[in-house]
Amino acid sequence: SKYAYVRNYELSDSLLPGCFLVCRLDGHSFHKFSEEHGFAKPNDKRALELMDRAAMDVMTEYKDIVLAFGESDEFSFLLRRSTDLYNRRQAKILTALTSYFTSCYVFHWSKYFPDTPMRYPPSFDGRIVLYPDERSVRDYFAWRQVDTHINNLYNTVFWALVQQGGKTTAEAHATLSGTASAAKHEMLFQQFNINYNDISARYKRGSVLVQVKKARTMVEVLHCDIIRDEFWKARSYVLAG
Amino acid sequence: SKYAYVRNYELSDSLLPGCFLVCRLDGHSFHKFSEEHGFAKPNDKRALELMDRAAMDVMTEYKDIVLAFGESDEFSFLLRRSTDLYNRRQAKILTALTSYFTSCYVFHWSKYFPDTPMRYPPSFDGRIVLYPDERSVRDYFAWRQVDTHINNLYNTVFWALVQQGGKTTAEAHATLSGTASAAKHEMLFQQFNINYNDISARYKRGSVLVQVKKARTMVEVLHCDIIRDEFWKARSYVLAG
Amino acid sequence: SKYAYVRNYELSDSLLPGCFLVCRLDGHSFHKFSEEHGFAKPNDKRALELMDRAAMDVMTEYKDIVLAFGESDEFSFLLRRSTDLYNRRQAKILTALTSYFTSCYVFHWSKYFPDTPMRYPPSFDGRIVLYPDERSVRDYFAWRQVDTHINNLYNTVFWALVQQGGKTTAEAHATLSGTASAAKHEMLFQQFNINYNDISARYKRGSVLVQVKKARTMVEVLHCDIIRDEFWKARSYVLAG
Amino acid sequence: SKYAYVRNYELSDSLLPGCFLVCRLDGHSFHKFSEEHGFAKPNDKRALELMDRAAMDVMTEYKDIVLAFGESDEFSFLLRRSTDLYNRRQAKILTALTSYFTSCYVFHWSKYFPDTPMRYPPSFDGRIVLYPDERSVRDYFAWRQVDTHINNLYNTVFWALVQQGGKTTAEAHATLSGTASAAKHEMLFQQFNINYNDISARYKRGSVLVQVKKARTMVEVLHCDIIRDEFWKARSYVLAG
Ligand SMILES: Nc1nc2c(ncn2[C@H]2C[C@H](O)[C@@H](COP(=O)(O)OP(=O)(O)OP(=O)(O)O)O2)c(=O)[nH]1
Ligand SMILES: Nc1nc2c(ncn2[C@H]2C[C@H](O)[C@@H](COP(=O)(O)OP(=O)(O)OP(=O)(O)O)O2)c(=O)[nH]1
Ligand SMILES: Nc1nc2c(ncn2[C@H]2C[C@H](O)[C@@H](COP(=O)(O)OP(=O)(O)OP(=O)(O)O)O2)c(=O)[nH]1
Ligand SMILES: Nc1nc2c(ncn2[C@H]2C[C@H](O)[C@@H](COP(=O)(O)OP(=O)(O)OP(=O)(O)O)O2)c(=O)[nH]1
Ligand SMILES: O=P(O)(O)OP(=O)(O)OP(=O)(O)O
Ligand SMILES: O=P(O)(O)OP(=O)(O)OP(=O)(O)O
Ligand SMILES: O=P(O)(O)OP(=O)(O)OP(=O)(O)O
Ligand SMILES: O=P(O)(O)OP(=O)(O)OP(=O)(O)O
Ligand SMILES: [Mg+2]
Ligand SMILES: [Mg+2]
Ligand SMILES: [Mg+2]
Ligand SMILES: [Mg+2]
Ligand SMILES: [Mg+2]
Ligand SMILES: [Mg+2]
Ligand SMILES: [Mg+2]
Ligand SMILES: [Mg+2]
Ligand SMILES: [Mg+2]
Ligand SMILES: [Mg+2]
Ligand SMILES: [Mg+2]
Ligand SMILES: [Mg+2]
Repeated sequence: SKYAYVRNYELSDSLLPGCFLVCRLDGHSFHKFSEEHGFAKPNDKRALELMDRAAMDVMTEYKDIVLAFGESDEFSFLLRRSTDLYNRRQAKILTALTSYFTSCYVFHWSKYFPDTPMRYPPSFDGRIVLYPDERSVRDYFAWRQVDTHINNLYNTVFWALVQQGGKTTAEAHATLSGTASAAKHEMLFQQFNINYNDISARYKRGSVLVQVKKARTMVEVLHCDIIRDEFWKARSYVLAG
Repeated sequence: SKYAYVRNYELSDSLLPGCFLVCRLDGHSFHKFSEEHGFAKPNDKRALELMDRAAMDVMTEYKDIVLAFGESDEFSFLLRRSTDLYNRRQAKILTALTSYFTSCYVFHWSKYFPDTPMRYPPSFDGRIVLYPDERSVRDYFAWRQVDTHINNLYNTVFWALVQQGGKTTAEAHATLSGTASAAKHEMLFQQFNINYNDISARYKRGSVLVQVKKARTMVEVLHCDIIRDEFWKARSYVLAG
Repeated sequence: SKYAYVRNYELSDSLLPGCFLVCRLDGHSFHKFSEEHGFAKPNDKRALELMDRAAMDVMTEYKDIVLAFGESDEFSFLLRRSTDLYNRRQAKILTALTSYFTSCYVFHWSKYFPDTPMRYPPSFDGRIVLYPDERSVRDYFAWRQVDTHINNLYNTVFWALVQQGGKTTAEAHATLSGTASAAKHEMLFQQFNINYNDISARYKRGSVLVQVKKARTMVEVLHCDIIRDEFWKARSYVLAG
Repeated sequence: SKYAYVRNYELSDSLLPGCFLVCRLDGHSFHKFSEEHGFAKPNDKRALELMDRAAMDVMTEYKDIVLAFGESDEFSFLLRRSTDLYNRRQAKILTALTSYFTSCYVFHWSKYFPDTPMRYPPSFDGRIVLYPDERSVRDYFAWRQVDTHINNLYNTVFWALVQQGGKTTAEAHATLSGTASAAKHEMLFQQFNINYNDISARYKRGSVLVQVKKARTMVEVLHCDIIRDEFWKARSYVLAG
């Protein structure tokens, strides 16, 4: 039609070739969403497994995602350097992953929260960041996993102080302010007899999803260290192309 | 942490001030999704009303959307020229709308398809296009509505030929190839006694959602002409800022 | 050759249709360049006329530039909204104008500075900014002309205090700090018997270059007000398309 | 002033960290410029040396340029991966290099063409391309040098056929169409007694400029192979950061 000229306003948004793509999704206002749906504190196993499930579905659908890492209300997806998904069109890739992840989250909700009806539809924001080399990709994932560790340690002591120690949240906050990592470990052990090392790897390390080239399972879920070399050396195909 | 430098790879993606933003969403592989869920042909009222519902929720949540237009598996949202939503960060706006629309679609599914369980999670792609002036915005919406009209007329005759005329889809296709609009109207009337004008405005014109400044309802759903001036003159606030 | 794949790393950089393009050039380190070449203070007529000449050559070469405004070491070029120059490729337009302006500046130098050999090659930075409507374009040029006025008034008094009043630059600076426009006018008149209104329009208002549709001259140089409506009304073709 | 809001229309254009930057300049309509100024065919030593000189000045001014390659009317500059020049702002870097190169070309013209006054101001277009790794950077330069070789061989035979063989340009073109490299070498040798290997390295290989860390000279001009490993291994600092 004579109106079709408006398509010319759609500009190309191709992503630079030769770079790794990281797409990070993060729950929109999950502070509120987790409250409204009674998420356990500091970590709700059901909520985290639902996140993993949505991410696994995304990886099953989009095979160019070679690795993913999840914690809290966020997930990061690594697309291989040479991916040609949607001709590397930024908006297409970004919305395909964000939309499908969201859809899976809502779709599978009742399997993970059988007794908690969803009260309103959650959503996720998304962004794509380019990393030109293996070093920066690895540092990206290290950044997220270190964040997981720091937050989890803090939250674990915080909620122990509140739930078992009878403190108000303001008091717990004040108690922890300025304390180093070692002090938090000690507080946990001394006051609550909790050995931080015994806490589930899922909570301490987040979720690592990798494409595996086996017959049946396609995506593997791990809760392992991705900061040191070991993980990466054993799976050199992850960054291979 | 020492890894935090990776955040520097996130580049600014602010959208030009002073332009209208149009965000168009489109169902991913809805050819298959509609088949798998038994959508009526050519138009499934439940499916279209579910789209409207998701769009209405999006507009209720994001008040800077002043107008939306839906047809088939797509919806276009107009954000006012001066919107400051997420500081006009492109990825934030794009994923917020795409994700929330998707979420609402899945969330409300069972209300519109009470007898049809969702078989797998649907998704939507999204894009944002900038339009610098009222003329191009209006032409954008005219482009979509003319498309609705053309497709609907074609599909209406096509499925009449198949469902009532006993033709194969290949035969129907061949019969229609090259015919003008008037010929299609006549075919409908002569062979199937269908007056195209009697067909529901929803199908002929798509869905127009506007923010209304009344007490209770906030979003109004119309199936009216948005190509001519009348609609726009009666609602000058839509393009006002 | 097998290396030609590297061209794929060149990404599209098309500028949004329907917007005015403003390209602003600014002399690189002209503080130093003007010192080294003995520019008169506060305004060097030769230097400003050379800038005008380079700009005029640019407009003669690139007819889609409908208006230009110059002051000090900078020039702003307005390309018409519908320009299709280099298919609106940003880098092409930006470098074509910047390079040609620079070339003309060096090329014509000796005509304007017959007694001052160029000591080293000057350069200019450039940028392109999009403006979606007439209001913002006009405000852009008003912004530059108001800047001209403010700087010129300041510099005129400043150098009068130094050159005629025998102050050091530090003293002149201190004397002027915080003074309003009226006070500066008065100071000029009282102490130096200079009526600011008598100062050349070139210095007070900068240079306005417009394409004129006459037989012989193609570009007209004016030193008129471009903030009020009058200029624009008399030349409606400037913003017409 | 109240107009200063127009600055908000200037959007950020930062280049992705961690990538090499290549800035390629190319003479605007040098087909005409070389004709008008009587450049020798196929290669004009003066013109090529002037290009080298302008490039050398650019590298002396901008130390983050670690390597440059020139041929014909073009020059490519490699900025080190970690450069922070102008905070990696694209337009600033692009115009700074393009403008300064142009300025030097005009400024030095009369030294290289003492008997040929410049008839009109030449200009150069410029672009910046990002390369994420050493492989693609090296392939970029290989692409340019292979291009030099192919063009030079062609042009050498072509102009021998015309200038010494008495053919028209159309005949020369026809004679060469479809011939392989070896055939061209032979034609040169048989018909004109020219051994292609004896031709100046400058013409066969173009100009390679590298920053050298010695006491006095800062930029070195070579006409060596940059396709094979040797050049790069001997200067690992070029791609080091
Ligand atoms: N109780 C509980 N809350 C969780 C869990 N996982 C995530 N959350 C909540 C706690 C945080 O308030 C929130 C994640 O923090 P964010 O920085 O993403 O903030 P939020 O999503 O509220 O805002 P945003 O829209 O991302 O800016 O999600 C969980 O397992 N249990
Ligand atoms: N039966 C039926 N199908 C519909 C209805 N609305 C949309 N569809 C289907 C018909 C089309 O095949 C499809 C929309 O066309 P598209 O061009 O968006 O194609 P599709 O979504 O398959 O691919 P895409 O991922 O968008 O490239 O959705 C409906 O009301 N009834
Ligand atoms: N004496 C004299 N100086 C002038 C004249 N026109 C411009 N200039 C000088 C004064 C200013 O220091 C300089 C323009 O200011 P800018 O803000 O552009 O600074 P500059 O070019 O030094 O640095 P930049 O590279 O643009 O950041 O040029 C003139 O007519 N006479
Ligand atoms: N005679 C002669 N011509 C040369 C020499 N170096 C470059 N040229 C001319 C020959 C080519 O026509 C032209 C370079 O080709 P380009 O593809 O860059 O074309 P041109 O600059 O004409 O157009 P453009 O504005 O770059 O699209 O410059 C030389 O040493 N001698
Ligand atoms: O947690 P992030 O990475 O999303 O960072 P933020 O501080 O929430 O900022 P934004 O989402 O606005 O980029
Ligand atoms: O229908 P559209 O507008 O999405 O156009 P398309 O032909 O599907 O193309 P794409 O979705 O790849 O932009
Ligand atoms: O004078 P401008 O407009 O160039 O503004 P600036 O303060 O010099 O900043 P920059 O040149 O770095 O954009
Ligand atoms: O020779 P190049 O690389 O400039 O390539 P081109 O074919 O001239 O194309 P353009 O200059 O338009 O990018
Ligand atoms: Mg965030
Ligand atoms: Mg969140
Ligand atoms: Mg979060
Ligand atoms: Mg599409
Ligand atoms: Mg679709
Ligand atoms: Mg569609
Ligand atoms: Mg500046
Ligand atoms: Mg300057
Ligand atoms: Mg300046
Ligand atoms: Mg070119
Ligand atoms: Mg050229
Ligand atoms: Mg060339």
